Amino acid sequence: MGIVIRNVQAILPEGGKDVVKKTSIYIENDRIVGIGDAPAAFKEERVIDGKDKLAIPGLINCHTHSYMAFMRNVADDLAFMDWLFGTVDPIEQKMTDEDTYWGACLAIIEMMKSGTTCFNDMMMNIKQTTRAIKESGMRAVMCRGLVGTAEDDGGRIDQTYEEIAFCKDCDRITFKFGPHAPYTCSEDYFRRVSDEAKKAGIGIHVHLSESMSEMEGVRKEHGCTPIEMAERNGLFDVPCIAAHCVQVDDHDMDILAKNGVSVVTNPASNMKLGNGFAPVPEMMEKGINVCIGTDGAASNNSLNLFHEMSLLALIHKGTHKTPQCIGARDVFRIATINGAKALGLEKEIGSLEVGKKADIAILDLKNPSLMPANNLIAALSYSANGSEVDTVIIDGKVTMEGRRILTMDEELVYSKVNEIIKRMELDKKEY
Amino acid sequence: MGIVIRNVQAILPEGGKDVVKKTSIYIENDRIVGIGDAPAAFKEERVIDGKDKLAIPGLINCHTHSYMAFMRNVADDLAFMDWLFGTVDPIEQKMTDEDTYWGACLAIIEMMKSGTTCFNDMMMNIKQTTRAIKESGMRAVMCRGLVGTAEDDGGRIDQTYEEIAFCKDCDRITFKFGPHAPYTCSEDYFRRVSDEAKKAGIGIHVHLSESMSEMEGVRKEHGCTPIEMAERNGLFDVPCIAAHCVQVDDHDMDILAKNGVSVVTNPASNMKLGNGFAPVPEMMEKGINVCIGTDGAASNNSLNLFHEMSLLALIHKGTHKTPQCIGARDVFRIATINGAKALGLEKEIGSLEVGKKADIAILDLKNPSLMPANNLIAALSYSANGSEVDTVIIDGKVTMEGRRILTMDEELVYSKVNEIIKRMELDKKEY
Repeated sequence: MGIVIRNVQAILPEGGKDVVKKTSIYIENDRIVGIGDAPAAFKEERVIDGKDKLAIPGLINCHTHSYMAFMRNVADDLAFMDWLFGTVDPIEQKMTDEDTYWGACLAIIEMMKSGTTCFNDMMMNIKQTTRAIKESGMRAVMCRGLVGTAEDDGGRIDQTYEEIAFCKDCDRITFKFGPHAPYTCSEDYFRRVSDEAKKAGIGIHVHLSESMSEMEGVRKEHGCTPIEMAERNGLFDVPCIAAHCVQVDDHDMDILAKNGVSVVTNPASNMKLGNGFAPVPEMMEKGINVCIGTDGAASNNSLNLFHEMSLLALIHKGTHKTPQCIGARDVFRIATINGAKALGLEKEIGSLEVGKKADIAILDLKNPSLMPANNLIAALSYSANGSEVDTVIIDGKVTMEGRRILTMDEELVYSKVNEIIKRMELDKKEY
Repeated sequence: MGIVIRNVQAILPEGGKDVVKKTSIYIENDRIVGIGDAPAAFKEERVIDGKDKLAIPGLINCHTHSYMAFMRNVADDLAFMDWLFGTVDPIEQKMTDEDTYWGACLAIIEMMKSGTTCFNDMMMNIKQTTRAIKESGMRAVMCRGLVGTAEDDGGRIDQTYEEIAFCKDCDRITFKFGPHAPYTCSEDYFRRVSDEAKKAGIGIHVHLSESMSEMEGVRKEHGCTPIEMAERNGLFDVPCIAAHCVQVDDHDMDILAKNGVSVVTNPASNMKLGNGFAPVPEMMEKGINVCIGTDGAASNNSLNLFHEMSLLALIHKGTHKTPQCIGARDVFRIATINGAKALGLEKEIGSLEVGKKADIAILDLKNPSLMPANNLIAALSYSANGSEVDTVIIDGKVTMEGRRILTMDEELVYSKVNEIIKRMELDKKEY
C-alpha cells in the first residue's frame, strides 16, 4: 500500500546533521521509498495530513524486560539485590505463560503510545513475548536470559536456537544471545556463549557493571571488573550490546571503545536502584556508541523513552556542573540511529531515509508542551512527555492512529494485567 | 452548584499518612463539603463518574515565571549567566503587554493539562498575567520581580501595592513581595523590601544560592553566602519561600530551618543550567519544608510537575547511591501540601479534606503508564507523565474535562505564541 505523509515537519539526516524540514514522506510496503518528491510510479492509496505534525524515526528502546510491565510499582525504594532477589524473583516464580503474554502486551502498548517502534528484550519466555510482538506489529530484538555454567545452563542455549526457528516467520524479530550478567554466569559459561554466538553469527546482549555489589562480587570471585571478565571470555568478539556500564573507570571504557561495544544507558533504573549515573559524556568522548533503554517497568517504572531522553539530557549537566556536556542533538541520535547501530540494524531503521524500513512516529505539535515550535529537536528531549505521539507506523503499517492502537485490544490488556495482580495479591500488598 | 465525584479512588490524608481509598467527593460552590457520605442537604447537580479514575489534590508549582512559556527551547545548553543575560534578557526587552498575556495563557494551559491548580509566579507584568489567571480559573500567588537599591528600584515596590489593589476582585490571586536575587538587589534593598513585607503582612519569594557564580559574587561583594545575606537583612523575618538553594552547606541549611524558610526545589532547571542538585534529603532531615517548582519554561523546558516529581524521586537516589533517601510518598507531599504550606495556603489547598477549596486533578487510570494499579502513590512519581490528567477542578469550577480546557481557547493561544516567535524571529534562529 502506498502511504504518503504530506507536508510534514520531519527530522532528517542531512550532511551528517539532523535538520528539521517540511517535506513529504512516501511509503510503499514496508519501506520509505521517497522523501520530498513522489517517486515515479508511486501509487498513492492513503494520505496522512502532516499539518501541525512532526515525523521522527521511531525511537529504539535498547534494553528492557517487557514481561515485567505488570510489576510496575510493586517494589520501590529498595536496594538493588533486595529488589531483584527479594521481590522480583518471587513474583517471577509465580508467573504463567499467559502472564508473560499479557505483560508483554502492556509493555508494547506503553512503548508504542510513546513513540517506540523497536525494543531489545531480555527474558525467559520468548514464545509468549513474540506472540505479542507478532500480533502488535512491533519490531524487536529478543534474547533469552542465559544463566549457569558451561556444563549446566538448563538447556537455555538450545532453547535459544529453538526460539530462533520459532520466529522465522516474522522478519520484524531478530535475536541475540543473552548471557545475563557476571554474577549469574560462570567464566566458562561466558566463554561457551561467546563461542556459540560466533558460530551462529549472532550478537550478544548482557548486563555489565550495574551495581557496586556486582563490582565487589566479581572482584572477589574473578579478580577483575565485569568488563574485563566479559572481554577475556570473548563476549566482545561478536557485536555486543552492554546494558548499564554505570560503575566503569577509564580502563573499562577503553576496553569498551577498543572492542566496539555499544553501551545502553538506563538513567531512570540506575538512579532508582541507587546505582548512580553512567559516565555517558566520557563514553561519548571515547567514541563509544551509546544508546538508551528503559530497563524493565519494575525498576523504572515506565517504558516511555521520552522520559528517559529527558533524564539523559538533564542528569549529566547536573553531575558535571556544565550544560555543555551533552545536548539535545546527542540525545536524539542516542535514542534513534545509535540504537539501530547497537542492534546491527542501522541499514534498516534509526533514521528517516529512502530505502530504510518505514518505522515512524508522528507527533501532534498542537500540544502545549511543544508550543511554540522554537526548536523541535530540543523539544523532544526537554519538553515532550511522549503523549504527543499521535500516529505510529512500523514496517510500513499504521499501528496507531489518533493515539488508538489498531493492532491490539487495549481494554482487554488492562483488564488482564489487573487480574494478574489480583491473583498474585499484589493489590493487597501494603505500600 | 453541587458536584459529586462518585466512587473514585482518591488520595486522602488519614492519621498523618496518605492513603488511597475508594470514596465519593462532594463539592459545593468553591469547597469540598463532604468525603464519603453526602452531607445533609447536599443538592446534587452534577455527577462525575469516578470509575477507573484517581482523584488527587491539584499539584502546586511553587516557582515559575509563566510569561516565559513562549521562550521554550530558545536557549539550550548554555551556562547560567549566558543564558540569563545573553539570551533571555534581550528577548524580554522586546516583549509587549500582549506577549506577556499570551505567554501566561500558554503556561496556564500546560500546567492545567498536567494537573497543576496553583502556581507561584515571579515576573514584571502582573496585570497581563493576572488577566490570564482570572479568565482561566487558575489559582496563583503573584510577585513582581524587585531589583534595585533602597534609593532606586524604579518604583517597583509601589507598583506591587497597585497590583495588589488591581487584583482585589479575584480571591484566587494572592501576593508576595519578590526581591529577585542577591545579585540583582543591594543589601539595603533587601532590608527595605523586608520592612515593607512586614508592614504589609505579606510574605517573600526570592531566588537564593542557585549558581556557583552567584555564590562567588555574593562572597566577594558581601563577604557571606546569599542565605546569610538574606537573613541579616530581614527576608526571613516574614514567611519566606526561597527558590533553588542548590549551593548550600550545613550552616546555610541550619539558617533556613531555624527561620522556617520554605525551599522550592527545581530539579530540571538546576540540572539544565549546570547548577547541580539541591540537597533535598538533607533539608528534609533538618525539618525544612521542601516544595517543588518547574522554574520558567526557558530553563526547563516544560511546566509539567509530574516530570519534576519524577526527577525529584530519582536524582537523589542517584547522587546519594541509595534508593531509600527519598520516596514517592515524600514527593507526593512535596508537590501538594508542602507547597500549600510554603504559600501560606495550607488551610485552603494541598489535600483533599472537607472544608478546603475544591482544587482537584482527576487522572484517567486507563492509561498504560498507570496500569496495572499496583501502587498509585508510587505511580504518580515514577510512571505518570501528566497526560493522564483528564479533569481539573479549581475553586469548585470544572476548568478542564476530557483534557479539553473549558475556560480558554487553546487553538488561539497556540497561534498567538507562534506569531510572537515569528515577530521576534526566534523561528529563524539557527538551533
